[in-house]
Amino acid sequence: MADNRSHADGARVLADLNTLRGFGAYKTGVHKPTFSQPHMRSVEWLARQLPEAALTATIDGIGNVLGTSSKPGPKLLAGSHLESQNHAGWLDGPLGVVYALEAAQIINADPNANGAVEVAAWSDEEGHFGSFLGSRSYVGAVTEADIDAARDASGRTMRQALRDVGLAGRARAKAERGRHVGYLEAHIEQGRALESGGLCIGVVTSIVGIWQYRITFSGEQNHAGTTRMADRRDAGLALARFCVAIDERLPALSSPRSVWTTGRITLDPGAPSIIPGRAEMLFQMRDDDAAVIARLEDLLQGMAAEVNAQGRCSVAIERIRTGAPAMMDARFQDAIEAASVQFAGGKSVRMPSAAGHDAQVLATIMPAGMMFVPSIGGISHHWTENTADADIVTGAQVYVEACRRLLAG
Amino acid sequence: MADNRSHADGARVLADLNTLRGFGAYKTGVHKPTFSQPHMRSVEWLARQLPEAALTATIDGIGNVLGTSSKPGPKLLAGSHLESQNHAGWLDGPLGVVYALEAAQIINADPNANGAVEVAAWSDEEGHFGSFLGSRSYVGAVTEADIDAARDASGRTMRQALRDVGLAGRARAKAERGRHVGYLEAHIEQGRALESGGLCIGVVTSIVGIWQYRITFSGEQNHAGTTRMADRRDAGLALARFCVAIDERLPALSSPRSVWTTGRITLDPGAPSIIPGRAEMLFQMRDDDAAVIARLEDLLQGMAAEVNAQGRCSVAIERIRTGAPAMMDARFQDAIEAASVQFAGGKSVRMPSAAGHDAQVLATIMPAGMMFVPSIGGISHHWTENTADADIVTGAQVYVEACRRLLAG
Repeated sequence: MADNRSHADGARVLADLNTLRGFGAYKTGVHKPTFSQPHMRSVEWLARQLPEAALTATIDGIGNVLGTSSKPGPKLLAGSHLESQNHAGWLDGPLGVVYALEAAQIINADPNANGAVEVAAWSDEEGHFGSFLGSRSYVGAVTEADIDAARDASGRTMRQALRDVGLAGRARAKAERGRHVGYLEAHIEQGRALESGGLCIGVVTSIVGIWQYRITFSGEQNHAGTTRMADRRDAGLALARFCVAIDERLPALSSPRSVWTTGRITLDPGAPSIIPGRAEMLFQMRDDDAAVIARLEDLLQGMAAEVNAQGRCSVAIERIRTGAPAMMDARFQDAIEAASVQFAGGKSVRMPSAAGHDAQVLATIMPAGMMFVPSIGGISHHWTENTADADIVTGAQVYVEACRRLLAG
Repeated sequence: MADNRSHADGARVLADLNTLRGFGAYKTGVHKPTFSQPHMRSVEWLARQLPEAALTATIDGIGNVLGTSSKPGPKLLAGSHLESQNHAGWLDGPLGVVYALEAAQIINADPNANGAVEVAAWSDEEGHFGSFLGSRSYVGAVTEADIDAARDASGRTMRQALRDVGLAGRARAKAERGRHVGYLEAHIEQGRALESGGLCIGVVTSIVGIWQYRITFSGEQNHAGTTRMADRRDAGLALARFCVAIDERLPALSSPRSVWTTGRITLDPGAPSIIPGRAEMLFQMRDDDAAVIARLEDLLQGMAAEVNAQGRCSVAIERIRTGAPAMMDARFQDAIEAASVQFAGGKSVRMPSAAGHDAQVLATIMPAGMMFVPSIGGISHHWTENTADADIVTGAQVYVEACRRLLAG
């Protein structure tokens, strides 16, 4: 059977991704923090492209870029984000935005295609100022007080950052309930499952929740020379012991998908000649099953109770972020899988996402789906992050076809 | 036998210490970093007092305060430092300066006393910019290049700091060889030995050396969600394991006086959602026996080799400071002990100093001695540091008498 419909233009997809890589280039990756000049150049570039896909461009008051169609029929919302982690990869975010733009360029101009693809680039998915503030603003889950409180690692307020890039006076866009058949996001896998299985497409079944904790150890600050070893209450050593105990004891109660990370450690006062009287670690756990996390959290609290019972140092565990695992819509999973049969020789696998994505926020108000392309060596959040050009092009073809299928109803 | 000589004026000593505590007061302690306004007010206050002790005041080009006598006869150099650690105690430094000033006020004005006490307050003993830069400059062990390289924790150069307080253009004072019979420094003990033994005076026999190391762990920076536990090369976890191994394995090879401390830990990049690819710890060891440290350093290198052989993360140990233990002069020890019999009921003990002091630098060019007074609870390098008023006064009486004995020849 002849297929006379237009497919994704692989060369155009690669060219667009390389244009975005040019803003804030760092080695082979990018350095594009939210509201930095390279991020805003990316935002403005996207806004200039949208009319070519028959979309009206808006940049809202929190930095979301939205392309709206006046074409009759069903609308599919599609996108990802444009900013990056510090000194990180070129595809984390832009891949999903460029795929969405490609789908809009092909489908919106095609009189035989049903409905239209509307494009979104969500602001600050990488969390320089908060947690999914762009997409959460769109679904109505961000208050003005949340924005007042948002700051980056340097202490700059989000309000100031918005003023600095001229966005402060604009209204924040809100989702029009019922407008979209759903939301589709593509992303690099950021893991090794596709690569090690010789696969092209990941069909995401769920997005894990992220639970985050501040674990604080209190001992006694004292002189590093005159305080005998036996007299010490070293908060830093208590923290190190706790990290090792986590590594030894959590595996027994975790699921195969559970991961945990200590990303930051601070010793106070942090001087070479002073025994730390206080030490703090930022600890994170992820799973798509809240019951598993509840079990691990109980274990952590039990371990803390043991430390406190010994009495040399005390420890307190404070949960500062509570995860919300999100299920991906079955119809979206089926559409991606069928498109993979057509354009990727069926080399797809259903898998959970261990990273958080804006799709989990959109999933709170509409059906949502995600598809992954392979990451070389599983590396991400680092400037060496990459995906083979051939995999990027295959992913674009699968993505455009999945959009067609979702709009076909 | 009647004793008609003047003794230390306890009320004046306490008043002077409280005046210095008023500059940069923080809770019951002080915050007086080198070349801060509170430090410079302390320096200027001392320079104003010196003429009352028949001394000519000089503030040299690195911030040392020196009081010089024109009285004939032997000269004893006496002092300590005026700046503090951040948010630290009121006696660490000022006690020794005020005792020296008190001794100069009594002895230099006494026609029956032999010789004179010359007062010194050494700049930056607490190491905000370097290691004993003030006293090392005086003994001729600091080059212009050393000063060029010196920076504080915020990255401000010492050159800039000297310009900011108007010291940059002044010459640095150099010791006149043979001028002094030696150097005497009083200090709080910063430990619990005196308090727990019901003693008043510590007669210091030696000052431990400080060896310092930068220990760097290299793993693989990656995404905290998508990287499975089994695939991780977490540099932060490798560091925590090393800290625990140090705690378990060093005691077998250490001396009863050995101490070691991890004062600072940095995970890179230090974000909650990124597995640290690099981690660094500042590690310090102290002992008055270099052979013990050599043994411990061998052990550390062996432990690092074990980590490297496992291959998950690599570790490198770099020595960034090499200790130089200093012996205190026997005649100085005898003089302090004899003065303790007279003014402290003989409640003294000979002991090593586990903290570094300017006396170890002065000991490289002249006989040197140190005496300690008790620290309540052994606490120091913290704003709660304190010594009972009665112990401060007893210490002053012992100190002035020790000066007399050292000048009597």
